[in-house]
Amino acid sequence: MKIMKTYKLALVGATGLVGRTALQVLEEKNLPVSEYVFFSSKKSAGNTIHLLGKEYVVRELTETSFDEGFDFAIFSAGGETAKKYAPIAASKGCVVVDNSSAFRMDDDVPLVVPEVNSDDLKHHNNIIANPNCSTIQAVVPLKPLDDKYKIKRVVYSTYQAVSGAGKHGVEDLENTQKGLEPKKFPHPIANNCLPHIDVFLDNGYTKEEMKMINETRKILHKPNLKVTATTVRVPVLNSHSESINVEFENDFDLEELKQLLKNSPGIVLQDDIEKNIYPLATNSSGFDEVFVGRIRRDESVPYGINMWVVADNVRKGAASNAIQIVEAMMK
Amino acid sequence: MKIMKTYKLALVGATGLVGRTALQVLEEKNLPVSEYVFFSSKKSAGNTIHLLGKEYVVRELTETSFDEGFDFAIFSAGGETAKKYAPIAASKGCVVVDNSSAFRMDDDVPLVVPEVNSDDLKHHNNIIANPNCSTIQAVVPLKPLDDKYKIKRVVYSTYQAVSGAGKHGVEDLENTQKGLEPKKFPHPIANNCLPHIDVFLDNGYTKEEMKMINETRKILHKPNLKVTATTVRVPVLNSHSESINVEFENDFDLEELKQLLKNSPGIVLQDDIEKNIYPLATNSSGFDEVFVGRIRRDESVPYGINMWVVADNVRKGAASNAIQIVEAMMK
Repeated sequence: MKIMKTYKLALVGATGLVGRTALQVLEEKNLPVSEYVFFSSKKSAGNTIHLLGKEYVVRELTETSFDEGFDFAIFSAGGETAKKYAPIAASKGCVVVDNSSAFRMDDDVPLVVPEVNSDDLKHHNNIIANPNCSTIQAVVPLKPLDDKYKIKRVVYSTYQAVSGAGKHGVEDLENTQKGLEPKKFPHPIANNCLPHIDVFLDNGYTKEEMKMINETRKILHKPNLKVTATTVRVPVLNSHSESINVEFENDFDLEELKQLLKNSPGIVLQDDIEKNIYPLATNSSGFDEVFVGRIRRDESVPYGINMWVVADNVRKGAASNAIQIVEAMMK
Repeated sequence: MKIMKTYKLALVGATGLVGRTALQVLEEKNLPVSEYVFFSSKKSAGNTIHLLGKEYVVRELTETSFDEGFDFAIFSAGGETAKKYAPIAASKGCVVVDNSSAFRMDDDVPLVVPEVNSDDLKHHNNIIANPNCSTIQAVVPLKPLDDKYKIKRVVYSTYQAVSGAGKHGVEDLENTQKGLEPKKFPHPIANNCLPHIDVFLDNGYTKEEMKMINETRKILHKPNLKVTATTVRVPVLNSHSESINVEFENDFDLEELKQLLKNSPGIVLQDDIEKNIYPLATNSSGFDEVFVGRIRRDESVPYGINMWVVADNVRKGAASNAIQIVEAMMK
């Protein structure tokens, strides 16, 4: 007789854009979960959710929601909700995987991309942070490159989809393409690239840019890594693209480097320019892998490359990565 | 009595996307031109053009077109036409300003952005090259920065509009947004960022990327400048945006650097993040200036910045720059 351990899992923010995608990923993964409970704000409570052949009524999140005991809770409900409720859940023995930026840079909170630093899950105080979408897809290829060639400096320029701003971002693209005024973004996203994601900080960078810089350092365990970033919203529905310039300490063979990426976890190498094959937003949507291509030597530094990295920001950048963290902890 | 010199000017490729914009710019500038003649391929010959209150019939370009004598000819008709007809025009004493890439890297052909290197117009063999659109808008701010702080290395990532691919590029955006198949680009541009402009070369770069690298060096007279580029087509109708990371030899004061750009020719500084003011494609369309903003110190190098540079690729990136060259030579 074989006894399989099963868990009780809560999903907080089940009715948002990431929450809905999380349901899809949970349906596909069919984790060893004996009981699912779905929470939302008062506004969306009472909605019905279908998962793995069962029907659930979404409950309102309250301070006593975690009293009944949970093994895991995935929070996709924004920073304010996380700050208030994640510590309550954690104090009742529930391991929280939080999608917001609320706890990411806390020293006692692991910031995890399972393919990259699942070892960091060994020590935590019941709160694990899911990194920012644009960081997750970047560190998946950067990690094996750093292990082998030692990264010296990274220059990020991103091409981020409107789905990263939730349903209102998606609505803004549709509305401004029809000539209507924007509601979510400060300017029309139709026919524009907005070099403005999240709020501006005193140093002239956006919070999104500083997330990429700081989270890359934390996840790669390189607190002094030289990184800079320009993060840009583009009129694309889903999946972020990134132009990443990387300088290494050590020399490399370009073919070996490509094979290294190809054989690294979570990566699909799409790099056959003769056949016009390179990562594309539309082709990566719906997948959990990070797609990497256009890899070429940067002759402006002794040892460097440029590459083009694309991933589904709602799946790998949020929902799937959080669920992969839970999955890793169940093992 | 004052005698004003007037000139005879030909526009080759008058019916294309750049040609039509050139007509608009010529209308606005009202240059000292006594006679305009418009040429096109056989297909478009016979069309009617209105300019400054007069009507013109477009003529078919032939090997004898320049026999009647011209002072200037602006070519916006692609590389093949330029290679065949520009030398004929030049041999008959006509100064050709060519928009294609056919002659740009020739040693005896000046490659000119008037705000940057109009001195290069002093020596030529009747052919002047107009740089690539993405290069033009980049070197306008890079030149004053190089003069003052000495540029060490540049990393370009571009966000290029479909108008850069002509009318068929514009049609592809419209068609693929409706779900139709692309005709111009290798993949649907709707909801995608294509890291593929012009053809791929043996070194893994696109021709567009190598144009940016080589033309930047030539225009700035820095043949060994360290430059790398990733050029990307985005689903934007008009105006290219660029994320430019610059490393300097010398230190700088950020406010002084911004003032330097603000006071440099051809630049509009749009950098007031507290009011969400930064360059945008839609706002720059229809202008000849280069818009620069999001200027901030890059802490990953001793002396560096990131900036966001936007310009109308059909005007400043092609038609207007060519006409500004003609204008500079008339003076």
